[in-house]
Amino acid sequence: MEALYFTRMSTKMTAVLLLLQLSSHFDSGSCGKVLVWSTEFSHWINMKVILEELTQRGHEVTVLKPSVSLFVDGDKSSAIKFESFPLSISGKYLENLKRKSISVLVYEMPKQPFWKYYSMFQEVMGQYSDVLENICRDAVLNKRLMAKLQESSFDVILSDAFFPCGELLAEILQKPFVYTFRFSPGNTIEKYSGGFLFPPSYVPIIFSELSDQMTFIERVKNLLYMIYFDFWFELLNEKKWNQFYSEILGEDTKIEDLYTMAKADFWLIRTYWDLEFPRPSLPNVDFVGGLHCRPAKPLPKEMEDFVQSSGENGVVVFSLGSIVGTLNEERANVIASALAQIPQKVLWRFDGKKPDTLGSNTRLYKWIPQGDLLGHPKTKAFITHGGTNGIYEAIYHGIPMIGIPLFVDQLDNISHLKIKGAAIRLDFNTMSSTDLLEALNEVIKDPSYKENVLRLSRIHHDQPVKPLDRAVFWIEFVMRHKGAKHLRVAAHDLSWFQYYSLDVVGFLFTCVATVILIVTKCCMLYCQKFAKTGKKKKGE
Amino acid sequence: MEALYFTRMSTKMTAVLLLLQLSSHFDSGSCGKVLVWSTEFSHWINMKVILEELTQRGHEVTVLKPSVSLFVDGDKSSAIKFESFPLSISGKYLENLKRKSISVLVYEMPKQPFWKYYSMFQEVMGQYSDVLENICRDAVLNKRLMAKLQESSFDVILSDAFFPCGELLAEILQKPFVYTFRFSPGNTIEKYSGGFLFPPSYVPIIFSELSDQMTFIERVKNLLYMIYFDFWFELLNEKKWNQFYSEILGEDTKIEDLYTMAKADFWLIRTYWDLEFPRPSLPNVDFVGGLHCRPAKPLPKEMEDFVQSSGENGVVVFSLGSIVGTLNEERANVIASALAQIPQKVLWRFDGKKPDTLGSNTRLYKWIPQGDLLGHPKTKAFITHGGTNGIYEAIYHGIPMIGIPLFVDQLDNISHLKIKGAAIRLDFNTMSSTDLLEALNEVIKDPSYKENVLRLSRIHHDQPVKPLDRAVFWIEFVMRHKGAKHLRVAAHDLSWFQYYSLDVVGFLFTCVATVILIVTKCCMLYCQKFAKTGKKKKGE
Repeated sequence: MEALYFTRMSTKMTAVLLLLQLSSHFDSGSCGKVLVWSTEFSHWINMKVILEELTQRGHEVTVLKPSVSLFVDGDKSSAIKFESFPLSISGKYLENLKRKSISVLVYEMPKQPFWKYYSMFQEVMGQYSDVLENICRDAVLNKRLMAKLQESSFDVILSDAFFPCGELLAEILQKPFVYTFRFSPGNTIEKYSGGFLFPPSYVPIIFSELSDQMTFIERVKNLLYMIYFDFWFELLNEKKWNQFYSEILGEDTKIEDLYTMAKADFWLIRTYWDLEFPRPSLPNVDFVGGLHCRPAKPLPKEMEDFVQSSGENGVVVFSLGSIVGTLNEERANVIASALAQIPQKVLWRFDGKKPDTLGSNTRLYKWIPQGDLLGHPKTKAFITHGGTNGIYEAIYHGIPMIGIPLFVDQLDNISHLKIKGAAIRLDFNTMSSTDLLEALNEVIKDPSYKENVLRLSRIHHDQPVKPLDRAVFWIEFVMRHKGAKHLRVAAHDLSWFQYYSLDVVGFLFTCVATVILIVTKCCMLYCQKFAKTGKKKKGE
Repeated sequence: MEALYFTRMSTKMTAVLLLLQLSSHFDSGSCGKVLVWSTEFSHWINMKVILEELTQRGHEVTVLKPSVSLFVDGDKSSAIKFESFPLSISGKYLENLKRKSISVLVYEMPKQPFWKYYSMFQEVMGQYSDVLENICRDAVLNKRLMAKLQESSFDVILSDAFFPCGELLAEILQKPFVYTFRFSPGNTIEKYSGGFLFPPSYVPIIFSELSDQMTFIERVKNLLYMIYFDFWFELLNEKKWNQFYSEILGEDTKIEDLYTMAKADFWLIRTYWDLEFPRPSLPNVDFVGGLHCRPAKPLPKEMEDFVQSSGENGVVVFSLGSIVGTLNEERANVIASALAQIPQKVLWRFDGKKPDTLGSNTRLYKWIPQGDLLGHPKTKAFITHGGTNGIYEAIYHGIPMIGIPLFVDQLDNISHLKIKGAAIRLDFNTMSSTDLLEALNEVIKDPSYKENVLRLSRIHHDQPVKPLDRAVFWIEFVMRHKGAKHLRVAAHDLSWFQYYSLDVVGFLFTCVATVILIVTKCCMLYCQKFAKTGKKKKGE
């Protein structure tokens, strides 16, 4: 009996040792070094949440940050390190570009016809692209910086595919890398992730503002948009990024070769099937939309008092996001006069001259704790520009929306929410006070908006693992395994005609045609011979 | 101060209430009623694991079981309920079919040339298909049974897409349903899940035994296999299932319409990227391969003593699965004589006449605790037929394999493991004792096999949520939300030419052609007019 006991114990212990041997390779507690190519605007706000979580789990996070930046900064309490490098562009130039481009995107572009609209958009994007190339060039040609990065032996590089350079750094430093990504115009970059994942027949591409249920004409529109953006992407890269990447790497390089999943180990897409329409995807892509959302914290005293003073009517939260601070006077007055007529109290994030029509029920704030306000039980509606971060906070807390989209993905975000019955959409430049007032009354009084956004909220909350935990898991996975090769499709090794099996189909057709030809020839020869023999016989 | 405290408290409490309101809709603790369409063979062994877990979490699980069955049974301790219905086929007939079909699949088919091989396979599958139709017919035409099921108001129906009928039941009872699935010949059923998810250029279809890295000729083979199985599937269904389903539902129905994801709410695929090559997938598909695996338990005393007696050399585990119990004498002797020559002790699951060449190092068992043996630290190698359940246990515990595949998916399973460097493949009918002996020595002595299978094991273990937990999560999700509509692609509403945008491309070509035609016509008319005017002028 004793012998058996020891035998079993030793068996168990060896089993434990084997498990330890296995688990040592994927111990989630081990810490790594993460290099981050910095992003800007709301992209940085979102990425910072991942970085903070990584540092809290003991990882060392270093953000490569140009000496001049609009958004990138760490809190004093944060453990995120910043590696700064000098930039050849002045802060004043960047501020000017931001101000001018917002003016074009918000006020000028919407008044233009289709082609002019997109040529103006192309121009703005081209200017940003120039800046991004400059930043990237200043980093990778900085010998001291690059030598330091080489020495630091990072475990993974993290970047946003919207801001090129991360993939170039990964190529130079020969490190595994992970993308965090919201979108590219027309989903051009996403398509390089490998294959027929955006069939234009039922996957509405971004900027088309369509749903997954398209009429024939809408499918024509979707395909034309796809072709247009593909062409534009090629044009933009051909001129600039391909040349630049080739120059740096010393060999003929196309940026799309670095975008493909053959290079990126994992893609963290900042949406989910609550907001997006379902589409095919690949094993090294995960949808982590709303990763920055968390339960609401208590509000500052003054704000809480104001919110409580709304009584049964509750409050409306209004923000046009972190980029657009000021509005022109005319638009501000149109909005303020509508807000003045509702029984709710309004908290408006606004940084400009106080509108003349502002009602006593509306308070202006240069900054609001948006997530906490949306999670407040008194909040009845959210007036939003439709930025992805903001609408995910509204979905998380189940607050119906009025969308006043301004540019880029905001138009599609609001379209999707409108189609799903969780928002009303208004046009920023043409809406009147009455339009906004009617929309507010409808969203607050018609229970369907609340029901629909609660449905999206349930979908959002009901996932096997929370989005932020999944994002961190996959970054840690790539560090632990030095990549995620087993998740990458082999599509990247194929040319487009091989991918669609056109060479194989061509070969099979040739085979069939050859057989038919030979059989026909033989038949004809036989018939001719038969005819000749017949004639001969007749002649005899 | 006190007022603020209470205000904050009330805010917090209302926030908690809102969260409760949200969470009540997705409380994972609530219990539901699951109806299961029973499966057979290893499919049942795997499904039973999910069902046991569901009962342990408090759900009521009812398995629809024909009065005669080969595998379906519950343990005495199990809380799974069985709803039996009379079957018009005898147990003897089923046993005979099983014996005969195994003889054809294992001994006769491999000797045949390609076309004969598949026509024999088609014949066997056709016989099973007849039996399955009979079982399905006996269930759905049993009025008492169907009335009872209608009354029972189940929350979800679970079935294996390999054994048709679950989708028909879901259609009749109008309930959400979930598939658990390993494969269909040529991946024909999986393709109905919605779209271009199996591009034959880099996704090797099952039965092709190819990898994701294919030469041109291999891609030709893969495409031909795909066409062949598509054709076969159409033929099989046209004759039988389409007619039967149309008869039952009273309207023209194609079985593939019920297979599509437009009907199934979720698909639980019993593989993962450790075994499979990565390929596109859809949001309502999850890969839960190895869900039945668990840490090893201690062995029975006699077995543990035998294992321990192997000393440093360790043991080899040998099983050809739950279906094939006996081998013919010649094959059994070839195997036994090879096993007799290795220094390891061997535990062989074998139910037949003891082979004459059996060595003293080999013990025969009618049944072995396979998972526990593979998890034993003394186990050096696993000789397997390559059934999915068995190889997942070997991957889970990191044991290199010698694959002797017999039929269906076993050939591809072993091919995949061979390509990934974790197994050696032998041919059951032609291998000699020397072949088996050399393979055993190589797998045990060459460390690369162990390293490769440990790599697969690390991939298998390193997932955000364990496969069984994910499987149960999604079944519970479908119960909580009465389906999973938000995860279903809109591809199902399109015809194939709409899906590939052929109508749109055709329309755009017509537009372009019309414009070219009009412009050309105008130019020609203008030239003609110009020429005439010129002549006139000359004439003047």
